Amino acid sequence: MPSRDRVHYFGAGPAPLPTPVLEEASKVLLNYNDSGVGITEISHRSADANAILAATQKALRQLLDIPESDGPDGYQILFLQGGGSGEFSAVVLNMVSAWVGGKLKEVGGDEAKLAEVVKNQLKLDYFVTGSWSLKASQEAARLVGGEHVNIVTDARKHRDGKFGVIPEQSTWSATSDKDSTALTYYCDNETVDGVEFQSTPTGHNLVADMSSNFLSRPVEVSKHAAIFGGAQKNVGTTGITIAIISNRILPPHAELAKPELLRKLGLPVGPVVLDWPTIAKNNSLYNTLPIFDVWIAGKVMERLLQIHPTASGPKIAGQQAESDKKSQLIYSTLDSNSNVYHVVPDKSVRSRMNICFRVKGGDDAAEKAFLKGAEERGLLGLKGHRSVGGIRISNYNAVPVAAAEKLAQYLQDYAKSA
Amino acid sequence: MPSRDRVHYFGAGPAPLPTPVLEEASKVLLNYNDSGVGITEISHRSADANAILAATQKALRQLLDIPESDGPDGYQILFLQGGGSGEFSAVVLNMVSAWVGGKLKEVGGDEAKLAEVVKNQLKLDYFVTGSWSLKASQEAARLVGGEHVNIVTDARKHRDGKFGVIPEQSTWSATSDKDSTALTYYCDNETVDGVEFQSTPTGHNLVADMSSNFLSRPVEVSKHAAIFGGAQKNVGTTGITIAIISNRILPPHAELAKPELLRKLGLPVGPVVLDWPTIAKNNSLYNTLPIFDVWIAGKVMERLLQIHPTASGPKIAGQQAESDKKSQLIYSTLDSNSNVYHVVPDKSVRSRMNICFRVKGGDDAAEKAFLKGAEERGLLGLKGHRSVGGIRISNYNAVPVAAAEKLAQYLQDYAKSA
Ligand SMILES: Cc1ncc(COP(=O)(O)O)c(C=O)c1O
Ligand SMILES: Cc1ncc(COP(=O)(O)O)c(C=O)c1O
Repeated sequence: MPSRDRVHYFGAGPAPLPTPVLEEASKVLLNYNDSGVGITEISHRSADANAILAATQKALRQLLDIPESDGPDGYQILFLQGGGSGEFSAVVLNMVSAWVGGKLKEVGGDEAKLAEVVKNQLKLDYFVTGSWSLKASQEAARLVGGEHVNIVTDARKHRDGKFGVIPEQSTWSATSDKDSTALTYYCDNETVDGVEFQSTPTGHNLVADMSSNFLSRPVEVSKHAAIFGGAQKNVGTTGITIAIISNRILPPHAELAKPELLRKLGLPVGPVVLDWPTIAKNNSLYNTLPIFDVWIAGKVMERLLQIHPTASGPKIAGQQAESDKKSQLIYSTLDSNSNVYHVVPDKSVRSRMNICFRVKGGDDAAEKAFLKGAEERGLLGLKGHRSVGGIRISNYNAVPVAAAEKLAQYLQDYAKSA
Repeated sequence: MPSRDRVHYFGAGPAPLPTPVLEEASKVLLNYNDSGVGITEISHRSADANAILAATQKALRQLLDIPESDGPDGYQILFLQGGGSGEFSAVVLNMVSAWVGGKLKEVGGDEAKLAEVVKNQLKLDYFVTGSWSLKASQEAARLVGGEHVNIVTDARKHRDGKFGVIPEQSTWSATSDKDSTALTYYCDNETVDGVEFQSTPTGHNLVADMSSNFLSRPVEVSKHAAIFGGAQKNVGTTGITIAIISNRILPPHAELAKPELLRKLGLPVGPVVLDWPTIAKNNSLYNTLPIFDVWIAGKVMERLLQIHPTASGPKIAGQQAESDKKSQLIYSTLDSNSNVYHVVPDKSVRSRMNICFRVKGGDDAAEKAFLKGAEERGLLGLKGHRSVGGIRISNYNAVPVAAAEKLAQYLQDYAKSA
């Protein structure tokens, strides 16, 4: 069976990690910082753990140019236990709490009036552009009731019932009154469907799921109320989710609704571990934080800071250039063999991270043969998600340029022989 | 600075892990099962991941004799992302949903009647015997309202406002009507206060937090509706919580309240990631499960199965004997030097896992000197929790007998010199 240096892994998540990071990890597992104690063993409240946390936050701020301030324009960086699905709920719970808190103030504390306002006005806007934003919108409906969820666009309605496009802005139907909009949600990169936003969509109280393209390009942080991403694709290991939260929705800048009030209004009270204000107040140490996962993310970020560092601008530009180069190589190889391959989503929304295509019009035998041939060359993790079928090449940050080149060569060779 | 074999770590959590497990972990991080892909990188839906999950569930069933059946007497083993604090919320959300679902049936679907029943009857019973059960009870009050939370006993009221005792059963005030009791909650071992239940308390719909004494003695599983434990103390790494859930509170044996209904009743709808029925239905793979953490737990359990295996009875008996031996050695050393040391909790409720004591009546200089001397001998992680002060020896499963012996020797030596 293959050794690590003989294979390239293109799984959609969990994703590959840089070998040097894993090599260092295998050492610190047994002994961190010459303490005689391993990194999964040390206390999350120790000086070592605090240093890891601070260094990782600092690297992330540099990579994405995240505004640092205690004022309303600043952003907090949180590390939350758990994954992206947990944040599908957290965004609803936190944004609704902040919205209700704001409205309570507007109605001068009149709870009867507030109940009317909630009933008639509260809206959560969702862009549904793939499987993950669909799931997030369903969780919102489960938590607050479907009557409060407004689908800005359902991309399937614009394309034979299947995802693969981001409809024109002229067709969007956002909630008209921005004062009613507790959040506007989008998934920046749809991992299953291979659809990526090409620019930041407009919307009030904007919330983004960047789980599968986090740290692959600059982000207009200031346009957002909240951004989150599970670590296990571009940043690290399964176990933590990174969130970038605007001070505007945290105390003291926001007044949050109290649990009693939310219950009276028939709105959900969230578990404390998903409560961003609590996690922010405790600098991500309200509960036991998996410091190993934070350490891995920090090491990955340190490496990203080294890639073609630019003098000015967000430091993620280096990795962006690499991501673009790899995805362009693969897409151009697919396009130049269009008799054999066809990319699933529309050209204008192709994801740089998850490249979804069919072989010979989705012929089962051909796709199996393609996968088998790939495996023989040590190219692993290429099977598409069952809901889309075919092939998916996940081109995350830790996929080396050399791997993309080898894969492009295989695409070329297979097409010739097919 | 010390190497791993020169120190013994007694931290309260995260806790030490067996060195051989960490050594194997450091290899599989780079290459799992000769696949060329590391264990944090493989898909949680791969055959390898499924095998890890199944093996870990099997080992746990053997260790604790967990009833396996699809009928009402069976129990499911779940691995949940996140830690113990998340389950403080999950127990409330799930048990209340099951309770309301049952009541809806009883009132023949009459929602007005149901609202009355909820208002007048719903009770969540809490044993408050230390910091963690206190926190859990506070989370319950936050989620459902303090009027529904009944404190069966607050141990502080029986001991000068401080934890350290489990009051006599005759003083408990459980909710008199068991049909009103959605859950009865206790923390089997209070990590901060060093208080451990010596037998399973009585209570309807019993729920136990076993985070800090999980897999250190047999458990009367069948008396419980749910048992949970964060992995990072006796079982593994921070990142997963193990839950043992009775089929009686899962579909099809229980009918759960729908989100719409809970909202109408002013009761919380939980995030889907904390919804036990959803996690059970998906065999813990609803969301991305940190397979590395499950693997570690599985390896630890494999080792526990090897300790003095007994022919019959729960296989955890081997580890129990070892835990007892270590804690008896330490307590007897403390007791025989009672002029210098005094154990914080009452003798009858002393925890085998977290041994809390003061040096010279809590003299600050003496306790600092004690810790310094310990560190010089490579005995680390002994500082007590800030809310109790003094010294805490955490005697988890991965603390070797030799470490306990070395510590006992130090206790002896320090007492002599003091
Ligand atoms: C874009 C996106 N969001 C959310 C999730 C859910 O993450 P998790 O499984 O960690 O809950 C995924 C998982 O693949 C994802 O790709
Ligand atoms: C008994 C007990 N329950 C719950 C918790 C909370 O666990 P976490 O920090 O993982 O949420 C702890 C943490 O130490 C604990 O000791």
